[in-house]
Amino acid sequence: MKVIVVGGVAGGMSAATRLRRLNEDAEIIVLEKGPYVSFANCGLPYHISGEIENREQLLVQTPEALKARYNLDIRTNHEVVEIHPEEKQVMVEHKQEVFAESYDALILSTGATPITPEIPGLSESQNVHTLRSIPDLDQIMENLSYQPENAILIGAGFIGLEIAENLKKRDINVNIVEKAPQVLPPLDEEMAAFVKNELLEQDVNVFFSNSVAQFQDQGRKVILENGEQLTSDLTILSMGIQPESTIAQQAGLKTGMRGGIYVDENYQTSDPNIYAIGDAIIVKQQITGENTLIALASPANRQGRQVADSISGLARKNKGSIGTSIVRVFNLTAASTGLNERSVKQQNLSHSVIHVAGKDHASYYPGATDITLKLIFHPETGEIYGAQAVGQKGVDKRIDVLATAIKAGLTVMDLPELELSYSPPFGSAKDIVNMAGYTAMNIIEGESTSIQWYELEDAFAKGKVLIDVRNKAELAKGQFKNSLHIPLNELRDRLSELDKDQEYIVSCHTGLRSYIAERILTQNGYNVENLDGAFALYKTIRPENLLYE
Amino acid sequence: MKVIVVGGVAGGMSAATRLRRLNEDAEIIVLEKGPYVSFANCGLPYHISGEIENREQLLVQTPEALKARYNLDIRTNHEVVEIHPEEKQVMVEHKQEVFAESYDALILSTGATPITPEIPGLSESQNVHTLRSIPDLDQIMENLSYQPENAILIGAGFIGLEIAENLKKRDINVNIVEKAPQVLPPLDEEMAAFVKNELLEQDVNVFFSNSVAQFQDQGRKVILENGEQLTSDLTILSMGIQPESTIAQQAGLKTGMRGGIYVDENYQTSDPNIYAIGDAIIVKQQITGENTLIALASPANRQGRQVADSISGLARKNKGSIGTSIVRVFNLTAASTGLNERSVKQQNLSHSVIHVAGKDHASYYPGATDITLKLIFHPETGEIYGAQAVGQKGVDKRIDVLATAIKAGLTVMDLPELELSYSPPFGSAKDIVNMAGYTAMNIIEGESTSIQWYELEDAFAKGKVLIDVRNKAELAKGQFKNSLHIPLNELRDRLSELDKDQEYIVSCHTGLRSYIAERILTQNGYNVENLDGAFALYKTIRPENLLYE
Repeated sequence: MKVIVVGGVAGGMSAATRLRRLNEDAEIIVLEKGPYVSFANCGLPYHISGEIENREQLLVQTPEALKARYNLDIRTNHEVVEIHPEEKQVMVEHKQEVFAESYDALILSTGATPITPEIPGLSESQNVHTLRSIPDLDQIMENLSYQPENAILIGAGFIGLEIAENLKKRDINVNIVEKAPQVLPPLDEEMAAFVKNELLEQDVNVFFSNSVAQFQDQGRKVILENGEQLTSDLTILSMGIQPESTIAQQAGLKTGMRGGIYVDENYQTSDPNIYAIGDAIIVKQQITGENTLIALASPANRQGRQVADSISGLARKNKGSIGTSIVRVFNLTAASTGLNERSVKQQNLSHSVIHVAGKDHASYYPGATDITLKLIFHPETGEIYGAQAVGQKGVDKRIDVLATAIKAGLTVMDLPELELSYSPPFGSAKDIVNMAGYTAMNIIEGESTSIQWYELEDAFAKGKVLIDVRNKAELAKGQFKNSLHIPLNELRDRLSELDKDQEYIVSCHTGLRSYIAERILTQNGYNVENLDGAFALYKTIRPENLLYE
Repeated sequence: MKVIVVGGVAGGMSAATRLRRLNEDAEIIVLEKGPYVSFANCGLPYHISGEIENREQLLVQTPEALKARYNLDIRTNHEVVEIHPEEKQVMVEHKQEVFAESYDALILSTGATPITPEIPGLSESQNVHTLRSIPDLDQIMENLSYQPENAILIGAGFIGLEIAENLKKRDINVNIVEKAPQVLPPLDEEMAAFVKNELLEQDVNVFFSNSVAQFQDQGRKVILENGEQLTSDLTILSMGIQPESTIAQQAGLKTGMRGGIYVDENYQTSDPNIYAIGDAIIVKQQITGENTLIALASPANRQGRQVADSISGLARKNKGSIGTSIVRVFNLTAASTGLNERSVKQQNLSHSVIHVAGKDHASYYPGATDITLKLIFHPETGEIYGAQAVGQKGVDKRIDVLATAIKAGLTVMDLPELELSYSPPFGSAKDIVNMAGYTAMNIIEGESTSIQWYELEDAFAKGKVLIDVRNKAELAKGQFKNSLHIPLNELRDRLSELDKDQEYIVSCHTGLRSYIAERILTQNGYNVENLDGAFALYKTIRPENLLYE
């Protein structure tokens, strides 16, 4: 058996090494168009600041080491320029010569390419880069050797923010230009607002709902759509990626959304001898069964192994992906898994939403920090559509637990049952994941009725009144419009001040006390809803709507 | 409705507060025999070193605050001395007077008491303490004010080791006496060996398979079973706990193993008006369905809430517990969930075991540390019986993911599918949990055959030869007896040195390379098994069996 793998990073190399372990006698050739294989793709941004100090640390494997260990024939600077499915051969370009190489099975792990729109002046701008490979990084590092003062990031996605942080750590002024009204599109806007605030705190400026109209002065002047002019010594395009499927399309393989390659459950393309994996393929979003593109290292690595199994005759099916991502932005971590509220709405899925606040470990143990956790779920079955979290520590753990729960088909009713490890340095007897389950169950079982932050202005317009049950001292942080102030501990004694014909909303700081207030009021016959996420969330996303004395 | 809750910590207070939220009009009385309610039980050891600086931080709630917020009638220093189920009343002792209090429903959350065996001289020893409550802690702190030089911990369980660490941080010499041949009984011995090594590293000495025969000189002299004499200024008994069910037994409620109270799925005891929760009850081990005792804060809190739901007419069933525990021991964290190998063997469950080693996050990102993860699973279905992990960082996350997987009934075949959050500071594209899944699947699907560390000596006795595929430089760390040395990268070229009639075992440092070697050898027709956990694990548990040059 002779297998050719196109692309020697992540999925491609997982496929090649697994193939070798299963088939000691197979001929396995890896064709990589770049100069390196198996480099630390996701580590590139961290070399910018020097946090990953040596460039060599990013070169996890070399063709020589892989040859010695796995007996793989790895050829770098070899670009597959054409596939001839009928002849079962690929045309390979190397040092300006093109030659043919035959295969029994071909695995396309061509990955994705950065989206680079046509912007006037871009092609003349020497200081504009993307960051997907070691040569990209080398160019950026060379630019950095000239001590740039001002950098611009175009695109505030996960990698964009990683780059922004690492540039800022070199004391470079960083401006970010983002087309959307928020950072980190996989998050919903109120969760992304925590990250926006951290960026501002760190003196990184973001121009939202804006894009670059023009580069001038060889890229040193950047003109935005709204007319604003920025100065840049270094500009990095981080506007997302799209499947790299040029050779697949030219060969007549079936492709779909944004050029993604169609594969079946065994990673077989429309040609039975050609397989494809990784960022280049269309996958099932496991929660909805819909087709989607998920460009992440974890699924790519799994797919690489699975396609090797399939080719070797082991039964293995691609069950799809849910998509889990995480990013550290200075002192904050933001992560998400599954679907966000926006996409659940777009797909008209019946859903409820909760936000809970808690600590990463026992609050009485030193160093406890805040986590805000959002859960999106079906309002009757409790099926979990997705989760998002922000905080300084322990965000990865909670999202990983919830990613596992979603993969396993657990519902919100199962979350209180999870026995998570607890001792004071690590967690709480009721972890925030358990609490999210309880809170969601209260919604499902009708013990609590909540409204979302984006519904509050409307509610006020309809004449609803907010009862703020925080303590007096807390009001200094800001107050709601249309609000009465009754501290929770006084509520039972002051019920007579309330009107049973009035519709109320109740809020405290994070939602723990307002839920107790809601229970007191409901059981006493008052008409009340709970502001989900309470003051803390509302202030994060809508500080301008609050009153300050 | 009038509900009495006996015991005002963890489960008891969860029950009382949830009852209030569901029943604004109920009369809810909490009777606590000690002077405090809702104190931070699990935080007590950390006040010893001053890591939790102020005693007040441990007093999470006060009766006054709980009255104001939840309208609870909380009576501290009120001990329930008798239950009269027929009359539906309890007899309560307070300030040497006894009075009756009636109930509609009674919830027993009496917890557990430390096991204190009768040891000669114990009753005359003023410096011997247990640590379960604030008054216990106060006594220990008073002892510490006399600047003790030498302390003895009797029992090396989770809490014992927490106390040992915190005493050591005060520069006190610490000796631990443990009846078992290992620390941390919920772990298997080879995993516990990592913790033992950390204790030795920190200059904490452990006397294994030993116990106290006698206290002399008012406890200042401690004589062990093996005749050894130790000096102690402060001795802490941490020999485990047993259900506190005295009043339940006296009232004729059905009890079982070690005095644990029998309850049904709704937490109802053998008397329909009496419920019990927490450390005092017998629960189902969820994995096997067997009765067991699980004294942990997380299940107790859940049970408190569920019993309140049951009493309030909400359908809620106790599904059982799997048991998840974690402990930080100086620079190491050890955690486990589900069943250990020892108990799986005792129950004659068909099982396989793997150990995998990995990093807590991307190895190329600064600060990556080692994790060793053990998985016990069914050799055909892949059902996960339990998991254990040790390492410096990220152990809690992996055990929580696996605890979630076990609760959800996932198999080892599902572990590679988990999409865990990955960016360099948080994880790896193939997390150690994914890797454990792959490794287990290799066993199940017959791609790898392993032997355990405790089978190696026997294998040598039967004439098997170990092929050590580490590099030459690594041999300085120690070598196996009966071993050939062939570095992995030379193996394909040196196959002719091997004998197809010889039975081989293969090992490297952590098992990654030996598995590749195993695949090469098997496919070339050699008879080979893989030493699970490889050299690193073997050296941890059996350093004396290795050869050192």
